[in-house]
Amino acid sequence: MATDTYDQFREDMLGRANVADTPELVDFYHDLESQHAGALWTVANKIEPWEPESDSVPVLWEYDRLRDHVLRALKLVSPEQAGRRVVYLANPGRTDVTAAVGWLYTGLQVMGPGEVASSHRHSASALRFIMEGSGAFTNVDGHKMTLGRNDFVLTPNGTWHEHGVAEDGSVCIWQDGLDIPLMNALEANFYEVHPDLQQAVSFPIDDSTSTWGSPGLKPAGETWSKRYSPLLKYEWEPTYEALCRLEKVSDGSPYDGIHMDYVNPFTGGPPMSTMGASMQLLRPGEHTKAHREVGSFVYQCAKGHGHSIIGGKRFDWKEKDIFVVPSWMWHEHVNGSGSEDACLFSFHDLPTMRALGLYRVEGLAENDGYQPLAS
Amino acid sequence: MATDTYDQFREDMLGRANVADTPELVDFYHDLESQHAGALWTVANKIEPWEPESDSVPVLWEYDRLRDHVLRALKLVSPEQAGRRVVYLANPGRTDVTAAVGWLYTGLQVMGPGEVASSHRHSASALRFIMEGSGAFTNVDGHKMTLGRNDFVLTPNGTWHEHGVAEDGSVCIWQDGLDIPLMNALEANFYEVHPDLQQAVSFPIDDSTSTWGSPGLKPAGETWSKRYSPLLKYEWEPTYEALCRLEKVSDGSPYDGIHMDYVNPFTGGPPMSTMGASMQLLRPGEHTKAHREVGSFVYQCAKGHGHSIIGGKRFDWKEKDIFVVPSWMWHEHVNGSGSEDACLFSFHDLPTMRALGLYRVEGLAENDGYQPLAS
Amino acid sequence: MATDTYDQFREDMLGRANVADTPELVDFYHDLESQHAGALWTVANKIEPWEPESDSVPVLWEYDRLRDHVLRALKLVSPEQAGRRVVYLANPGRTDVTAAVGWLYTGLQVMGPGEVASSHRHSASALRFIMEGSGAFTNVDGHKMTLGRNDFVLTPNGTWHEHGVAEDGSVCIWQDGLDIPLMNALEANFYEVHPDLQQAVSFPIDDSTSTWGSPGLKPAGETWSKRYSPLLKYEWEPTYEALCRLEKVSDGSPYDGIHMDYVNPFTGGPPMSTMGASMQLLRPGEHTKAHREVGSFVYQCAKGHGHSIIGGKRFDWKEKDIFVVPSWMWHEHVNGSGSEDACLFSFHDLPTMRALGLYRVEGLAENDGYQPLAS
Amino acid sequence: MATDTYDQFREDMLGRANVADTPELVDFYHDLESQHAGALWTVANKIEPWEPESDSVPVLWEYDRLRDHVLRALKLVSPEQAGRRVVYLANPGRTDVTAAVGWLYTGLQVMGPGEVASSHRHSASALRFIMEGSGAFTNVDGHKMTLGRNDFVLTPNGTWHEHGVAEDGSVCIWQDGLDIPLMNALEANFYEVHPDLQQAVSFPIDDSTSTWGSPGLKPAGETWSKRYSPLLKYEWEPTYEALCRLEKVSDGSPYDGIHMDYVNPFTGGPPMSTMGASMQLLRPGEHTKAHREVGSFVYQCAKGHGHSIIGGKRFDWKEKDIFVVPSWMWHEHVNGSGSEDACLFSFHDLPTMRALGLYRVEGLAENDGYQPLAS
Ligand SMILES: [Fe+2]
Ligand SMILES: [Fe+2]
Ligand SMILES: [Fe+2]
Ligand SMILES: [Fe+2]
Ligand SMILES: [Fe+2]
Ligand SMILES: [Fe+2]
Ligand SMILES: [Fe+2]
Ligand SMILES: [Fe+2]
Repeated sequence: MATDTYDQFREDMLGRANVADTPELVDFYHDLESQHAGALWTVANKIEPWEPESDSVPVLWEYDRLRDHVLRALKLVSPEQAGRRVVYLANPGRTDVTAAVGWLYTGLQVMGPGEVASSHRHSASALRFIMEGSGAFTNVDGHKMTLGRNDFVLTPNGTWHEHGVAEDGSVCIWQDGLDIPLMNALEANFYEVHPDLQQAVSFPIDDSTSTWGSPGLKPAGETWSKRYSPLLKYEWEPTYEALCRLEKVSDGSPYDGIHMDYVNPFTGGPPMSTMGASMQLLRPGEHTKAHREVGSFVYQCAKGHGHSIIGGKRFDWKEKDIFVVPSWMWHEHVNGSGSEDACLFSFHDLPTMRALGLYRVEGLAENDGYQPLAS
Repeated sequence: MATDTYDQFREDMLGRANVADTPELVDFYHDLESQHAGALWTVANKIEPWEPESDSVPVLWEYDRLRDHVLRALKLVSPEQAGRRVVYLANPGRTDVTAAVGWLYTGLQVMGPGEVASSHRHSASALRFIMEGSGAFTNVDGHKMTLGRNDFVLTPNGTWHEHGVAEDGSVCIWQDGLDIPLMNALEANFYEVHPDLQQAVSFPIDDSTSTWGSPGLKPAGETWSKRYSPLLKYEWEPTYEALCRLEKVSDGSPYDGIHMDYVNPFTGGPPMSTMGASMQLLRPGEHTKAHREVGSFVYQCAKGHGHSIIGGKRFDWKEKDIFVVPSWMWHEHVNGSGSEDACLFSFHDLPTMRALGLYRVEGLAENDGYQPLAS
Repeated sequence: MATDTYDQFREDMLGRANVADTPELVDFYHDLESQHAGALWTVANKIEPWEPESDSVPVLWEYDRLRDHVLRALKLVSPEQAGRRVVYLANPGRTDVTAAVGWLYTGLQVMGPGEVASSHRHSASALRFIMEGSGAFTNVDGHKMTLGRNDFVLTPNGTWHEHGVAEDGSVCIWQDGLDIPLMNALEANFYEVHPDLQQAVSFPIDDSTSTWGSPGLKPAGETWSKRYSPLLKYEWEPTYEALCRLEKVSDGSPYDGIHMDYVNPFTGGPPMSTMGASMQLLRPGEHTKAHREVGSFVYQCAKGHGHSIIGGKRFDWKEKDIFVVPSWMWHEHVNGSGSEDACLFSFHDLPTMRALGLYRVEGLAENDGYQPLAS
Repeated sequence: MATDTYDQFREDMLGRANVADTPELVDFYHDLESQHAGALWTVANKIEPWEPESDSVPVLWEYDRLRDHVLRALKLVSPEQAGRRVVYLANPGRTDVTAAVGWLYTGLQVMGPGEVASSHRHSASALRFIMEGSGAFTNVDGHKMTLGRNDFVLTPNGTWHEHGVAEDGSVCIWQDGLDIPLMNALEANFYEVHPDLQQAVSFPIDDSTSTWGSPGLKPAGETWSKRYSPLLKYEWEPTYEALCRLEKVSDGSPYDGIHMDYVNPFTGGPPMSTMGASMQLLRPGEHTKAHREVGSFVYQCAKGHGHSIIGGKRFDWKEKDIFVVPSWMWHEHVNGSGSEDACLFSFHDLPTMRALGLYRVEGLAENDGYQPLAS
């Protein structure tokens, strides 16, 4: 019977398991199964692959196609019913864990003027990237922040948070990124609803940015023992200026152009323990070389248009489109304009990989560093 | 149809998703699916549970029952064919990822006199706990070590390693512990066979223990930039002495008795990035109180006998028995003797949990801290 | 004889040395001296004081009075002859170690158009605060920087450095701050002249500020293993803006008003191992409360006017005046204007104190926190 | 006049100050002095030396000669009068700061049976090395320890401490090492007498060694936030065993033989923030090569006999003799026996140097690495 085959992972190479099934062995395997045990050599080549092979596939979600559905949700459910009104993106290879790629979740949240979602907290870390609308705000542990286009905002692990849109605002849409799948995989996910459902505003509006968002400076004597950044909102304007400034003095990376990481200003490290984020600028006409990394990436085009080649397949993107790059898959990026720069926001699990000593990166050696396109 | 039910996770509570299916909504869900998307509120309560619920179940493997099977393997396959001759332990809830509990793999490796397995390395970190036999050795990056009963030995991430038994030795069995399932889950697992199949012995025998295994001392001026311990073998005798010494000056932990962690002497931290290990001594008659932790544990009884209550179920153990405690499951330990101490070796993924800021522990408040036994 | 008195430090208190001289004891002391030894109790109360008593005195140097002398130096010596053309400030209590306060050196360097000083490096760390003139530049390990009024610039320990003024510039004066006295005290000071006397410009002008001087961002993938900041120039304009932004959301410190530390953006820590620097803004009419700190401080008024009360004595300051606060001496600051803010730049040895675990701070409890003025 | 010479440090080399006095310049210098200022070029070559030149000289104190004086003190003063009954060692170049070398103080403390010194604490860190007698004990923050020959004991910065000898003990002598001179130089020294003059014993005797003094292990779950080691006593026997074990697997250092550092087991780092200590074993007939280090060292011979060559001068030592090596001075050690090993205990300020990034070491290149003896 098919289920009684145990030698399908054989490899004919010294140092790898290479044991053919025999009746005697299959008997042995059956006996082991009855003991909640197995023979390592029947699975060794499967569980010790030569290199990572991601369960995820590269996908691109066009904002133009998603947007209508997101707006439809606005009418179909209220935040009270839904908890949060979000359309999430499901990687075909990862629907079982509700992930967009690897162990990363992402979705588009929509709120209308005057709406507010209830306050809660969880082990999962969250981040936002603001896509459209005016008047949105978020409150993280009493720090209320206004949200503008292309702002990057943190809701770290364990913080109380709630979102809303001002009465005089417009319909707002932003991308949520979370490590919910990772928290569940690690069997470490806790959830709490705020006892008062809403939380107070305890600090001046946008105080974290005014306090921690200045270059080369920190408030004197301020201590901070949390594992996440005290700077909670990174605004688009200074971020874009930073890229333009860096462009003038740096050749950038052959794989990523002008590329900056959002950091925790208190430590210089990643903004949260498990997830990081970056913004990169592709210069007019730039076509980066291919590399692959241990880690999963969710991109959103923040400016301009172009395409990326991921695992040999081309994905065309323009502003607000979202796409993913699975772990250890070749990828390269192309600015579609010869005169304007293009910007890609991304978030990823590199802080997790680095915390565990697992990060690796490799440039493509062949073909001058460019992937052949799969036909 | 069953597959068209989207509201099976509803909870009737403010702050949780509570949306009943309607034909209009189900249409909407179908449309989202066609876009590789979904509505968060249909899965939110599932993916954001109130607290972790492990996929693993508690299991105990009696060595008396396993041993015969392990010895049978000695005759059935050679190390050359099998790569390594190992019987692994499969948690009924985790057979898909070949884990004993959570993301931890464990198995029993057996080698006869004169046998040697080929050298290789991988992203997974490994550890050994020696169970029986004489003459076993391991070679880790040229550091050859002799292996004695109850010794704890490291094979860190990325090190070349091979094992064997001396010609004049006896059949040897040891427990292997690895984070193979975690490395695969994180899509970070690489594997290499040593170009020469065997590696040289580059240092005096047991040099790492002689160099780094002294209390409160390190070789002067020695630097070390690896993420794992330079001390590779922790011998049983000084470990047991340490527990006895600690017992004399400490009340120990109400949850774990006299309890010590194996550490990297260069940093005082865990011996490897992803996995740690401990040895604990239960005093005669000791019955510890119940607690639960974010993290998965594999125990082996190193001395004496007793039982543990895990998730309300009793598991009796004696020397060399192996059992597991899943994440966030109540557990307590009982020394079965009123006159002798009992020792439990364990390894776990707490370094992973701590690196990501996810570790939590909680003592049982009710019933004076003891679990009621499930009947 | 006076020299034979050994009991001048007696204190009549249990736990303190309290031994009166006797002929027998004095004999004993003489015998010890002949052995290069002594009796601890003859000096214990002196070398173990109840609290630190600084050898330094508070001093203020008026720029109006210093400036003429500094300009006079311009005519009297060339950079070639002098090495560097600097007038240093000598604390009356520390002339033996050429310190302005504690173990900190400071001086005013002056260069004319077209002048350039030769390149060298040393164990001492240096910093600059620019006071007047246009066209000044510094080159630190190939990173050439232009220097503007109130810019703060690093020349870390071990970096090659040289300064100059462009041909079309004007006479420039800046403050140098160094830990030369500390390096000498620690017997750790090395000095080298650059083999070519001048060094090349190896990077785009001001590249360190363009690369590292952006809020909440760092160049992706950039590593840095030096013990000092990769950001070498902190410009005045964004610094002043940061203070104004912080003022809007913070009450500041009762002892220092709106107070920010210059940091190493790679670590969030101090810019150099031994010295740090700060900029503080005193709001119109602000009179801070008195505190004292373990550490020595050199201040320069960067904007406005006011006075400080140091050790009970009043010191009036206006732009470019320099004054010092010795270790563990009470100090408070007063903005002299009721309508304009005032800014004080300062540098200090707090990183040294913190690295050794010695920093302490204490607010004045009496008199509502204000020192009585010594009459 | 002699005092009016300002050009005594001239060096005739580009990049160094080389300004001859002229009447005009001397006038200028006088004017600067009246402003508490000076011309840098008059002192630059002095305060920026090519390399460190220690104020200390190498000295050896023979225990045979000191011991009588120490015992004499036993009769001359009581601990109540003296605070502590200690004969300190005074470097001829550092009598002004009561240092044995650099900023390190050392002395010999003597106590008789039944004596006890009052409890106090201070910013200075202290250590002990036990020389003779039985029954001595120390109490550090409630941790009472018994003191045996050649034990190394900590009294860290800020801990309450008191010493004594049991009624049934004998006269005890030990070496005290402190950073008192450094604390005074840094103007950071605080002192307090214990409110009750004596402190309680709050833990089982020698609990710190039983808890933290085991190889490769720490008590599970134990946290520690102090900047010093939780292990307070390092006993001689396991230390000597460690050296013998290391000797078997290591060639040791050409400059120091078999050389181990005492460490904080919680961090793997130095036992205290400012001072560290080491024990080294010179093999029979070993003659180490010369090197020099930034840092000051106090040695005591713990076993055997031999000599050291320091700054070209020979110093012969045997058990309990003490000698010092100043910063950046060449030194080499010779075991005087061809059949027995010799051991040198030392303490030093390398943790201070390393915390500030100032440590350097250099081997002697000439003469096959051996200093010519000054005749
Ligand atoms: Fe949330
Ligand atoms: Fe990439
Ligand atoms: Fe392996
Ligand atoms: Fe537990
Ligand atoms: Fe310099
Ligand atoms: Fe202050
Ligand atoms: Fe003391
Ligand atoms: Fe040395």
